[in-house]
Amino acid sequence: MTKYFCIIISFKEFLKPLFKYPLFYFVFVLSLLGISKRKKGKSLMNVVELIRKKRDGKSLSKDEVRFLISSYTKNKIPDYQFSSLLMAIFLNGMNDEETSFLTDAMLYSGKVINLNLFKGSKVDKHSTGGVGDKTSLILAPIAAAAGIYVPMISGRGLGHTGGTLDKLESIPGFKTDLSLVEYKSILKKCGAVLIGQTKDIAPADKLIYSLRDVTGTVESISLITASIMSKKLAEGIDGIVLDVKTGSGAFMKEEKEALKLANSLITTAKSFNKKVIAFITDMNQPLGNNIGNWLEVLESINILKGDEEGDLLDLSKALSGAMIYLGGKAESLSEGIEISQTMIDNGKAFEKFLEIVKLQGGDISYINKPEKYPKSKIVEDIYSESEGYVESINNFEIGMAALELGAGRQTKEDNIDPKAGIIFKAKIGDYVNKGDLLAEIHTSTKIKVCKAKEKIINSIKLSNYVPEEKKLIKQIIY
Amino acid sequence: MTKYFCIIISFKEFLKPLFKYPLFYFVFVLSLLGISKRKKGKSLMNVVELIRKKRDGKSLSKDEVRFLISSYTKNKIPDYQFSSLLMAIFLNGMNDEETSFLTDAMLYSGKVINLNLFKGSKVDKHSTGGVGDKTSLILAPIAAAAGIYVPMISGRGLGHTGGTLDKLESIPGFKTDLSLVEYKSILKKCGAVLIGQTKDIAPADKLIYSLRDVTGTVESISLITASIMSKKLAEGIDGIVLDVKTGSGAFMKEEKEALKLANSLITTAKSFNKKVIAFITDMNQPLGNNIGNWLEVLESINILKGDEEGDLLDLSKALSGAMIYLGGKAESLSEGIEISQTMIDNGKAFEKFLEIVKLQGGDISYINKPEKYPKSKIVEDIYSESEGYVESINNFEIGMAALELGAGRQTKEDNIDPKAGIIFKAKIGDYVNKGDLLAEIHTSTKIKVCKAKEKIINSIKLSNYVPEEKKLIKQIIY
Repeated sequence: MTKYFCIIISFKEFLKPLFKYPLFYFVFVLSLLGISKRKKGKSLMNVVELIRKKRDGKSLSKDEVRFLISSYTKNKIPDYQFSSLLMAIFLNGMNDEETSFLTDAMLYSGKVINLNLFKGSKVDKHSTGGVGDKTSLILAPIAAAAGIYVPMISGRGLGHTGGTLDKLESIPGFKTDLSLVEYKSILKKCGAVLIGQTKDIAPADKLIYSLRDVTGTVESISLITASIMSKKLAEGIDGIVLDVKTGSGAFMKEEKEALKLANSLITTAKSFNKKVIAFITDMNQPLGNNIGNWLEVLESINILKGDEEGDLLDLSKALSGAMIYLGGKAESLSEGIEISQTMIDNGKAFEKFLEIVKLQGGDISYINKPEKYPKSKIVEDIYSESEGYVESINNFEIGMAALELGAGRQTKEDNIDPKAGIIFKAKIGDYVNKGDLLAEIHTSTKIKVCKAKEKIINSIKLSNYVPEEKKLIKQIIY
Repeated sequence: MTKYFCIIISFKEFLKPLFKYPLFYFVFVLSLLGISKRKKGKSLMNVVELIRKKRDGKSLSKDEVRFLISSYTKNKIPDYQFSSLLMAIFLNGMNDEETSFLTDAMLYSGKVINLNLFKGSKVDKHSTGGVGDKTSLILAPIAAAAGIYVPMISGRGLGHTGGTLDKLESIPGFKTDLSLVEYKSILKKCGAVLIGQTKDIAPADKLIYSLRDVTGTVESISLITASIMSKKLAEGIDGIVLDVKTGSGAFMKEEKEALKLANSLITTAKSFNKKVIAFITDMNQPLGNNIGNWLEVLESINILKGDEEGDLLDLSKALSGAMIYLGGKAESLSEGIEISQTMIDNGKAFEKFLEIVKLQGGDISYINKPEKYPKSKIVEDIYSESEGYVESINNFEIGMAALELGAGRQTKEDNIDPKAGIIFKAKIGDYVNKGDLLAEIHTSTKIKVCKAKEKIINSIKLSNYVPEEKKLIKQIIY
């Protein structure tokens, strides 16, 4: 009763000005409709309400996640609201579905490359990063030689870990900032391409990562998963091999944390119908022997030529083997690994590497004759001051020593010295005598030598007992 | 060994330019010393480290909390870092000690009034806010009449609740934006003063509250405690009486939440050596009958003159009784309550009210002859459309109805209509017949009448059974 009376009254009040100022009234009503429409759109998705929802441990819907990411990317949500949301996500977590929504929203914040016209499987690898991890340089040519398309968008060095782009750019002339047209064209020609993230690829990730970095919200499984997968899925791949590292030189120090991340990455990849295999691998010591950009290219050349054996060869073959298997060119992982060895033995992998370098503008004379590459001003040997079995290595400190020698950046603006780095000789379990060579350091000034020398010696712990063996590949998860 | 060698080398390298450019070298070394000093200061307190500490559930030290608050107040920490910290505090909580540190840091972000030269106890009251809660206007003159200094810094209406300042300013001429000199002078003259928060008082609170409001971090016991106590402690008080409201018209809907907040406030007050009593009181229906600024002044006048009884009188006497007891003018709470009644009966409370109004610039002719106050353009009665016992009232909706009638602000910029509001007749447990008067609404336009009418009628739930009695004072905590 009251209600109807109200509506009649309101309507009468509302109509009054119509007769007095009809034109004005018309414009006024139209603008009112516009306002109410806008208000409605706004109230449908209230940022504070969504923050509170996540804060209270509830799950966000696909539309809600997409609204948050797209608005933030368009600068319509201020940083202070988004960082509060990030902390709520950090502390309350996201379930698998939400993580997949987040990945999707970040993926579609930018361009998604379409490689459907390529006949054949497109498979990439992602590593969570470590010290001396140059497997991308080795497995890309191996897998491409075996008939897999390897479209690879890589990153730069971060903290104590190196970056594939920095390594490739140590090859004179090698270009990583290719356009998407060049990317497709090189991929088509030789089956592999290695470029850097362009601003078109997952721009939301770049923005969110910068904010996470300064708001204490980096180490979240969901946020890491979405960050990795949104960039990788934008490449246009069918499958992905994951190398989740654990140990003193990895971001995930504990194996159980690495396992959580691996599972989250696998679930997300599967939710996008991608084939996936994850490896949990050891990062308690440098992978291979060389750390530093050109030094790592050099070691990769040796592996591709079949001149070197050891953990780096084993892991590279396992990862490329998995790529070949996921890409359907092998019946099993072990067959994929065998094919990888064949590609090295028959010289096709090294040939493919030369082809990639050439197509991306690199000077292959340095690959064919690495000895012509300029030497570091200072190359100094580090000898052991005592004896015993190498029990453990503080691999984070080794990475930091390489960084300080010039192989990495302390701030974004720092220049990298491509020649700088460490050739690290001590492996866990080796017996070392006093005066034995532990490492060779390559750098430009004496002050840098001193700091690095101390770091390297202090990071190697010797013991009288034979230490427990560290398995290189701890787990393989399909 | 390596270490000493390093130091010698470094030193030699460092001294080289000295001989070539001595003046330049001197300036360079001096500036280096300056930089290293600054860097040290910065690294001692890294904002991201502190966010991570709170995020990981650890406790912050007094120095850390003070650094965070003082840096944020000085605009040296960006909003996006502080909001991430606020969410971490919201989700991981703060222990009593940290809450006390936070209160202290916010308190000393501004001026702390010193009333040590005042001979006698200084006691204030704080209420968490509700509908029709005008006790400040009643207990300040009662306690002052009983010999207690009542230095009161109050706030404005927030959402569905009214604000003491808005109520006082409905008295023509009444000024609440006094300087601290005027504040002290009026307090000295008449024993009570009621002003608004100046920008000198706890500026950190104002900044933090604005940020909490838009980042989903309002309802945190620690943050609420520090916000309330930092402002109250700045008044220069010896004791405080807390009225923590619970029920449909309160911010804390659940009694157990109200109890948590009361305990947190008590612990914090005690850590500053303040005397304290907390009341948990019912807010499931309006306190007294009048809602709206001048209407509440009117009801306060009636109570002070001894012309009205009921829940408002009972609670006002309990709170002023507690103030008189804390201030040492009564041996017990009950004696304090008796003294309060005496102050009403002997006319001293009303006299004190007139004195306060006069000293703060108000026109006391309106207090002496309230009937001369302008009437609302529209005064309309609302009658019951059915019958039964009043079982419950959605008190939040009653507050919102008053706000819509003009008694509060929907946005910060809105003007208040001092005459607008509701005289609410139905109390829980009353039997209502069809056609009985439920409420009288005072407003300026017919559209407002309609909306409010519907809200009021819908918020009153009638039942065939006598409902359980709601205790006005649920708990008293010392």
